Order: sequence, then structure tokens, then C-alpha cells
Amino acid sequence: MTHDVISGGQPIHAPDNLKPLLEDILQQAMSVNDGKVADYIPALAEVKADYCALTVATLDGNVTSVGDTNKPFSIQSISKIYGLMLAMERLGDPLWERVQMEPSGQPFNSIVQLEWEKGIPRNPMINAGAILVSDVLVSHYSASKSALLSMVRGLCGSEAVCVDSRVHESEREHGARNAALAYLMKSFGNIESDVEEVLDHYFWQCALTMNTEQLASSLAFLANRGQCPRSGKQITSHRDAQRINALLSTSGMYDQSGQFAFTVGLPAKSGVGGGIIAIVPDYGVISAWSPPLNSFGNSARGMFMIRELANRLGLSVY
Amino acid sequence: MTHDVISGGQPIHAPDNLKPLLEDILQQAMSVNDGKVADYIPALAEVKADYCALTVATLDGNVTSVGDTNKPFSIQSISKIYGLMLAMERLGDPLWERVQMEPSGQPFNSIVQLEWEKGIPRNPMINAGAILVSDVLVSHYSASKSALLSMVRGLCGSEAVCVDSRVHESEREHGARNAALAYLMKSFGNIESDVEEVLDHYFWQCALTMNTEQLASSLAFLANRGQCPRSGKQITSHRDAQRINALLSTSGMYDQSGQFAFTVGLPAKSGVGGGIIAIVPDYGVISAWSPPLNSFGNSARGMFMIRELANRLGLSVY
Amino acid sequence: MTHDVISGGQPIHAPDNLKPLLEDILQQAMSVNDGKVADYIPALAEVKADYCALTVATLDGNVTSVGDTNKPFSIQSISKIYGLMLAMERLGDPLWERVQMEPSGQPFNSIVQLEWEKGIPRNPMINAGAILVSDVLVSHYSASKSALLSMVRGLCGSEAVCVDSRVHESEREHGARNAALAYLMKSFGNIESDVEEVLDHYFWQCALTMNTEQLASSLAFLANRGQCPRSGKQITSHRDAQRINALLSTSGMYDQSGQFAFTVGLPAKSGVGGGIIAIVPDYGVISAWSPPLNSFGNSARGMFMIRELANRLGLSVY
Amino acid sequence: MTHDVISGGQPIHAPDNLKPLLEDILQQAMSVNDGKVADYIPALAEVKADYCALTVATLDGNVTSVGDTNKPFSIQSISKIYGLMLAMERLGDPLWERVQMEPSGQPFNSIVQLEWEKGIPRNPMINAGAILVSDVLVSHYSASKSALLSMVRGLCGSEAVCVDSRVHESEREHGARNAALAYLMKSFGNIESDVEEVLDHYFWQCALTMNTEQLASSLAFLANRGQCPRSGKQITSHRDAQRINALLSTSGMYDQSGQFAFTVGLPAKSGVGGGIIAIVPDYGVISAWSPPLNSFGNSARGMFMIRELANRLGLSVY
Repeated sequence: MTHDVISGGQPIHAPDNLKPLLEDILQQAMSVNDGKVADYIPALAEVKADYCALTVATLDGNVTSVGDTNKPFSIQSISKIYGLMLAMERLGDPLWERVQMEPSGQPFNSIVQLEWEKGIPRNPMINAGAILVSDVLVSHYSASKSALLSMVRGLCGSEAVCVDSRVHESEREHGARNAALAYLMKSFGNIESDVEEVLDHYFWQCALTMNTEQLASSLAFLANRGQCPRSGKQITSHRDAQRINALLSTSGMYDQSGQFAFTVGLPAKSGVGGGIIAIVPDYGVISAWSPPLNSFGNSARGMFMIRELANRLGLSVY
Repeated sequence: MTHDVISGGQPIHAPDNLKPLLEDILQQAMSVNDGKVADYIPALAEVKADYCALTVATLDGNVTSVGDTNKPFSIQSISKIYGLMLAMERLGDPLWERVQMEPSGQPFNSIVQLEWEKGIPRNPMINAGAILVSDVLVSHYSASKSALLSMVRGLCGSEAVCVDSRVHESEREHGARNAALAYLMKSFGNIESDVEEVLDHYFWQCALTMNTEQLASSLAFLANRGQCPRSGKQITSHRDAQRINALLSTSGMYDQSGQFAFTVGLPAKSGVGGGIIAIVPDYGVISAWSPPLNSFGNSARGMFMIRELANRLGLSVY
Repeated sequence: MTHDVISGGQPIHAPDNLKPLLEDILQQAMSVNDGKVADYIPALAEVKADYCALTVATLDGNVTSVGDTNKPFSIQSISKIYGLMLAMERLGDPLWERVQMEPSGQPFNSIVQLEWEKGIPRNPMINAGAILVSDVLVSHYSASKSALLSMVRGLCGSEAVCVDSRVHESEREHGARNAALAYLMKSFGNIESDVEEVLDHYFWQCALTMNTEQLASSLAFLANRGQCPRSGKQITSHRDAQRINALLSTSGMYDQSGQFAFTVGLPAKSGVGGGIIAIVPDYGVISAWSPPLNSFGNSARGMFMIRELANRLGLSVY
Repeated sequence: MTHDVISGGQPIHAPDNLKPLLEDILQQAMSVNDGKVADYIPALAEVKADYCALTVATLDGNVTSVGDTNKPFSIQSISKIYGLMLAMERLGDPLWERVQMEPSGQPFNSIVQLEWEKGIPRNPMINAGAILVSDVLVSHYSASKSALLSMVRGLCGSEAVCVDSRVHESEREHGARNAALAYLMKSFGNIESDVEEVLDHYFWQCALTMNTEQLASSLAFLANRGQCPRSGKQITSHRDAQRINALLSTSGMYDQSGQFAFTVGLPAKSGVGGGIIAIVPDYGVISAWSPPLNSFGNSARGMFMIRELANRLGLSVY
């Protein structure tokens, strides 16, 4: 028995009980073995390669999970969404004079493009853009870290979300390239606060630790026209939820964003900790986690699971 | 009185009679005066700057038009969609070994990226990608031009679609940069046929001449899961329609694609003749035309009209 | 017994009879085996890898040669010097508005830099610059080929210099990248004549065939303040001879020019046929030939022999 | 009355008394008014634009000066020569595994090339290369600053050479781009010491303050086969003096190095404080100073004076 939900203008024939479907997909995913766990910092390199989790949180409040869904992991670049939300709220449209909204056509940490564009990052989903956003937060909040943490905890309704201080430290120690990006923006006058403080916020934010269920709940408002389906609270305007989804669609999956749009067709964001979240407007949020990464820095099994699920349920927004 | 249609998972409160809305938007658009008519060839430079047209073709068969909708114009890069359709049909997945599906983060005619990527264009919506597609057509069809023309005529149900031979000639005479792109791909072994023949097809295709109503009808299948709403014929699979829409979303509006996704949220394609088409899945197609272009090569009034219409009707797919 | 000649401000302790020294160096060179014969066209790929020749032509009229010095080979990019001489003579200073005189910091056939610099090549020693020079010749001479050939024959006092028509044809067939460079310059308005005609001259010039003795004699004027030591004819002004030597010093050895200046210290030019010439002001010309190329496109044994000879005789201009 | 000295293989007809010639050239130079004083830090911006000095130190011990030759100025990038000398001495050939010796074909502070070349700077005369050299000094000397200062004082035989602490501070405050270069090299593993310490040495070294006579004396060994003509001490080997001169010839004048070789033909180095030094092998050293810079960052009047002097005396090494 199925019931119809609406997404991308088309009825989704989603079963009442998603669990068997998710279990089937998770099992298939375990035979995907071509990725490599991020090893630029020890704290990430140590994570076991065979962790795998898949969660679907639908707007009716149901949360279906399979695999290691209770295991918190480093969300890394997925945190760029939270930072952006806070910066959009605080700065409004002037934010877009300091960061563009165009796909980059470049690796996530490219410094070449930043030079060409005179210190204006292409979008807030690449490192340079998220560092710029961190500068906005550091400059406009007296305590940018606690503002962000309290927002995230509120979004997923759990005080359990925390920051892994070992990852935070490691990121800072191995963050020379991000420092280069920050100083280059500074040289173009596009960083207002002290560079070291900005980088500290950025590295801290990357070290946020969550599990797939917390991630999915926290971002459900993006699938629900800006409203948190659990609390009923309007997190952002419907327009801003659409705007964030648009950014995720064109720029959320590093230099594989176009391929993800082509093969899956959902707004999504990945992190080098192996997590991926995908937004299905008017249906819910999918989150996946498995540490081994493909050559673009996206979780190999995570990509597989989300593509498989989206194709089986017909979830493309296009 | 309004009725609800479904798009992007949300009911569109579209009035039964769109005409007054379109007229209002067209009138506002006429006060947008910051564009510049394309002048790289005389045949385009001579087109009057104050032409303006707006058409909405909904899937129920209604076509609502205001302005100069009967005036045919040079569709230029919008023809890239038709070429791509034919190449996808003929080559299938192997096409994507010769052209990527990633946004370029570069101007539409950049040669730098083509060099970095060793002759593999970033996507079929930039010039290099469309020249590659032209090579596929020239190599796989005995008469690539008539195959394309007959497909387009069939799609819009009109034999009136033709090619402006003066534009075709002019494009060839002023096509040195496109020749450079083609020869660079040839040097990497990614052009199979004779370069001059490939360029001739490409320039010919850019010289297709249509009006906004023909454009909108011809692409209605992209909003209708691959099926032509007029003839009932399945033009492409639903999956391929979604794929083309995905490409248009990430790469259809030159280096303003991200901004278009952010502010409008619809798959779209523009041409330097001043035309723009936007796909609204499960609703219909919007087409706009006005020759003056903004700095990205997109029609300034066309952008205004489509954004205005999408925002008033709430048409974003996100 | 030695006599002193003067170069770079320092007495050169050159033996009266250079032959034993050259023979020793040639023998050592034969154990250099890390190069690879150019294989982008069959006519070059077929040349035997173990050809090796070394010639020194001093200003007193002595020519000392060892190895395969009577075997003519394709001089390829060394011909860029002859083309430049003719263009400088015909155009004078305005030539330098269309081509710069800066080292490129890029491979010899880079298209990226040409795009950045808006179609103005960095110098006349890279392909784009030599194609630009070919445009000057084609545009300003009724018969650019015979003008060049007759100049070269006059310079080396031999009618035996000719063009290998098979190489000429092959270059044209495999010249897609050079065509891309030419069309890109055309698109920036920096090519005046028909691109195909310009490329034909360029490919023809690259197919000039000479032996090391002819090469050395033809360029002796560059070591002799512009005057041909054989005929006494003033080929260029002293100033122009110094200017050409300066260009060879900063840009003559592809992307290994800096290393050549550092380790050898002489103006020089190489070609992918395996030839290299080096100018020793007020002393003479060294020419070397051996087909296998290093990764920069310079003859591996040729580099070895010239470095060895220069170091043993103390020939650096610095 | 004149006597002949030898340079570049050609007798230099230099007058016994250079003073009238220098005075004439200085006077002409004062009418060159198209430069702009460096203004990126206040300490440089405040220097009067009409300072002008010209010194020639010949190997016979004569020093001829006109203009503001007793006024010390910030030597800035000319200090790159001193740093390089110390690093070559300490590290020997392995230095060249961490920095190349090729001209850059890019502005002096380009980060693009550093990214392409994976953190290996093109040469020690651009900022990235000099920062790399600073890392070598900081890593291999217990007190890199005093080692450098004592070497420079020894070279010019004057304890008066010092460092302007205000310039040093200002450089650090406005050094974001140099910090970006340093962190980028660090991210590629090409910086061993602490980045802040390396930058501190680099900024300190740029703040060295000397006058044209001190500069000319200190570098006379480069014109004298490595030997200091004053003390008779062998500063470097003849070979290393030639190597440094080769680097100055291909890379010493920023992105105007090729033009300088073409129009002047001497190894040279400039700094944004307005100083330029040029080496004439076996003759002497020319130093010039005038603060206004041309668009390449070279002193406009300094360029004029050295070109004029070299052309009148026929000093090109080519």
C-alpha cells in the first residue's frame, strides 16, 4: 500500500513503511568500495570506513533510519548551510555584495578563481565563501560560536549536538590552504575581522558533530517552505528556503554538483566527514553517511544511496 | 477566480486569464533600459531594441502572449537544447564521456577551461559543448541540418520555422573564437569530423529563427515529463526531460545561472538574440524576447519579465 | 697552446683546435639516453634517435664539427629567428604592439595566456608569437616563403637549404592546436591575413631543413654585432642583434629558458627536430643536433653538449 | 679622452669622468613624470616624488654619483638578492628543488601560478620565491636577521645600513597577500618553519634602508666574477655570480624583465621603493633611485636613467 505525496510537481509513490526500501539500498551500498576516507587530519582518518547510515525524515514527522544512525560524525561542510542561514538573517541582501551565488566550476578549495574574482568568492558553499560567511558571523555576533550552536540545537530539537574539539584543533593545524584563502580575501579588503579569529570560527563550525537523524530534522524546514515541521516555527521565509535550496542545487556537491543535479535532481550538501543531506521540497529530507569519499570529496556510498532512493521514489525537483 | 496547478510541490495560484498579468509585466519591462543589443554581427545589431514579447504556454493547451510574439528572431544559444536532444537520442550515455555536465564558472566562450579540462567541455550549454554536440550530429547523421530542422518543426507543429541565411553567413565570418574552441578540441582528439563542417552546422543551428510562441510550444514536453502535450507523443523519457531541465538549471543562463536559480528557480536557457525560455515542470513553458542584453549576455527585459512572472505565480522548483 | 678570445667580458681560453674537445663531449653525450623523439607527426617520429652532431663556427671563419653534421634535419622552431628578422626589418617598432617581448612562464603552445593577454602573444619565440610573425610576413610580402628562403640561403651561403614538403604537409594535418592559437588571435583582431594562409606559412617555415653547419653559419651575424663574418655584409644593426639575443636569452628555450640561462648563460633557440643553436657574442655560434627531446621539448643531448662546451670554455655572457 | 673597458665582449668607450654624462641623464630624467609613488603603506607613500639619484661604481674603485645619493631609501625587493645569496651558500643545489629558476610571465605577487606549480615558486625574485628563501634562512640560521644584516654591511663596507622599523611594521600590517602566498606554500609542504616567523623575516628584509652608493658597492662582486673589488674577498664563486646575474636577467624586473633585456640588456633588480641596480660584468654596477613607479612596479625615472646610460656607453651583455 502506498500513499501519494507531492514533490517537483509529481506524485511520489512512497510506501507507508520506507524501512525495507532503505535496508535494501543500504545493503547494496555496502558493496560500493571505491572511496577513500579523508586523511588530511588524524581525527578523520581514524573513522572506520564501514560505517554507513541512511535516514529519511518526512514532513509528517516520520523518521525512518537504517544503519549507524546513532553514531555522531563530523559534519564538516554541511555546516556551511547553518553559517549561511545566520549570515543571511543578519546581513540580508548586502551579503551578496561580498559573496556571489554562482557555481564555481572549480575544486572546493581553489584559490585561482578567488584571485580572478578579486577576493569575492563564487558562492557560500565553497571554502572561501564559507570563510567569508564566518567573517560576517564573527563581525556581527558577540559570540558567533554559541549563536550558531544554539541555532543548530534548536533546529534539531536536541542539546546533544556538540563540537569535537580534537577535530577543531586538527583543522586549525592543517588549515594552511584555508588560511591562504582567508588572507587573499583580506588582501582584497573582503575580510573585516581578524583573520585568525575568522579561521577559528570556520574550523570550529566544521567540527560540529551530529548523526543522520539530527541532520535530517534540523534541515526539514528547507523542505517545508521555511517552517520547522516539528515545532511549527517559521525558520526562514519560504523565499529564503527556496534560495538556499537553489544554492545547494547549483553548488552543494563540490565539483560534482552538475552531475548530482543530472542524476538525482535534488538540492544537496556533502561534507568530507562522509555525510550528505538532500532536500525534497514538500516531502522531507534524506541524510546519508559513510566515510569513504570519491575523487570529488563526496561520500561514495552516500551518493549511491541517495541516487538510488531518489530514482526509486521519483524525487527529482526537475 | 483562480485555479490551482501544481509546480515544485506547491499550488500555483494562476489566474484563468493570464493576459492582464502578462500585459502588466510587459509594460513594466519596457522601462528596463540598461541592456545593449548584440552587435558582433550586423544581422543581430540591426534588430530594433524595443521589441518585447512574453508568452506562457500551459500544459492544458492554452497559449497566452503579449507584445511582439509573431515576430521571429534569431534563437541563437537556445538551439543548444535541440542539438543536445538529438545527440542524447543518438549517442546515449557515451555522449557524457565527451562532454561533462558541470557548470563552468566561466564566460560562455572561455577557452581557458577547455585547455585545463583537456578538450572536454564542461557542459553542452556553453559554446564548446554545443560545438562538440554539433560534431556528434555531423558525424552521426547523413544530413544533420535537415534532421534538426525537421525535429524542431515537428516539436512546434509548424513548418514556418526556418534558418536566417544572412545570420548563418555572418556567424561564420565572425566565428574566429568558436573556430579556436573547435580546433583546440580537435587537438585533444575530441572532434571526429572535419572542423569546418562542424562549425558550419553549429553556426547554422544558431541562426534558427522562431517566435516566442513557437519556442514555448516546441519545449512544452520538458514541462510535461517528456510528452508533447499537443500531440501526445513521447519526445523523450521522463528521466531525460528531468536531466535536460537539470542541465538548464545549473548551466542554462551563462555565468548568471546561479543567480537565476537563486532569484527565479526555474530551468531556463537564453540566447544572444534576446530570447529566454523557462521550464515550469507540470505547468508549462514561459518564453520571453527582447534584444538588449545585460553584461552576461542575457536579455535584460527577458530576465525581468520571467523573474517577475515566476515570483508573482510562485513558480520556483525549489 | 691556446689563444684568448673575448666573450662576456672574460677571455675564453679556447684551444686552437676544438675538435678533440668536441669529440670528447659528443662521446659523453651518447650516454645521455633519457629523451624521446618527437612523435606528433610521422615524418619526425621516423628520424633515428642516435643521430648526434655538434658544430662550433667562430668569427675568424673556422668551422669545427663532429658527428652527423652533414645530415639535414627539420629545424622547426629555430626558424622563428628567421621569421622574426624579416618581420623586424619590415615592420620596425610597430611589430611590438602586436607581440610582447616577455618570457611566458608557460609551455610553448599555451592558449591560456593568449586569452588573458587578449590575443597579444608574450613573445615571438612561442608558437602564438611566431604565428603572429607569420601573419606579418604573409601580409607584407607578396611571396613570404621565397623571401624567407632566399634570406636563409643568403645567410648561410648555400642554396642547399630547402623545405621538407612531407613535414610541411604533416604539420598542417596535425596542426589543430596551432590553428586554435591563430583563430583565437584572429578573434581578438590580431591576425590580418587569412588564417589558413598564415598557418600555411608557419608550417612551411617549421619544415625548413638544414644541418648544424648551415645553422651555425647563418646565425654568425648575431655573434658579430649584426655583421656576417663571411660576407662582411651588415645583416642587422648591432642594436637589433643584441635585441634578438636578449629575446633568445629570456625566451628561446621554451619553459626551460631560465634554467638554460642559469646553467649555460648564452642566448639560444631550440626546435622539436632536436636542433639547438647558441650565440656567443664576439666569439661565434654553437649548434647541436640530436632528436630525442626532454620533457620541455629541448634536445636532451643537445642541452648536454652545449652546457658542457660552454662550461669548459667559460662562455656565459653573464 | 676615453679609455676602453671590456663588457659583453665589446669595448666600452667610457669617459674617464662620468659625472657630466650622469648629470645630463639625471636632468633629462627629471622630466619623466608618468610614475606613481608606491602607496600601499604610509611609510612609502610619504617619500617625496622628486628624489632622484644615479650612481656608477666601476671595478677600478671609482664611484661617480649625481643627485640624492646620500639619502637612504627602502630597498624592498632588491633585498631578494641578499637573501638568495645567503640561501645558496647555506643550502647549495637542493635549494633549487624548492624554488625554480624560470621567469614567471606573471605579476610579482601572483598566487595563480603558485597553485598550478603546487607551491614551488617560479624563481627567487618574485615574492613567493623570496618568502621561500626567507623560510630557508629562518630554518637554517639561529638569527637570520643579524646574519643577513652583517653580510650586507660587510658587502658595502659600512655599518650605516639599517632597517626601518616603521616600514617593517607597516609591511606586516599590509602583508595579507604575502601571507596568502606563504600559507599556500605551507599547504603544499614547501614551508618548514612557522609561517609568521618566515613572514616577519621577509618583511624585515624588505625594510632594509640603503643609498645608491651603498647598493652599488655591495653588489660589485657580481660584476667582478664573485670577488669584492674593494676588499679582494671572494664573495661567491665566479659561477655563482654568473648564475645570480642570469636570474636577474630573466626575472629581476618583474613582468618587465623581457623588455628590460631587450632595451637595456643588463642583469638588474628593482624594488617598489624606487631603487634599481644593474650589473655590468667586468665593468661595474649602476644604481638608480627615484620613487615614482611605472605600472609594472619599476621606478619610471630609474628605468629611463639606466637605459639611457647603457645605450650611450654600449653596455648590453648581448
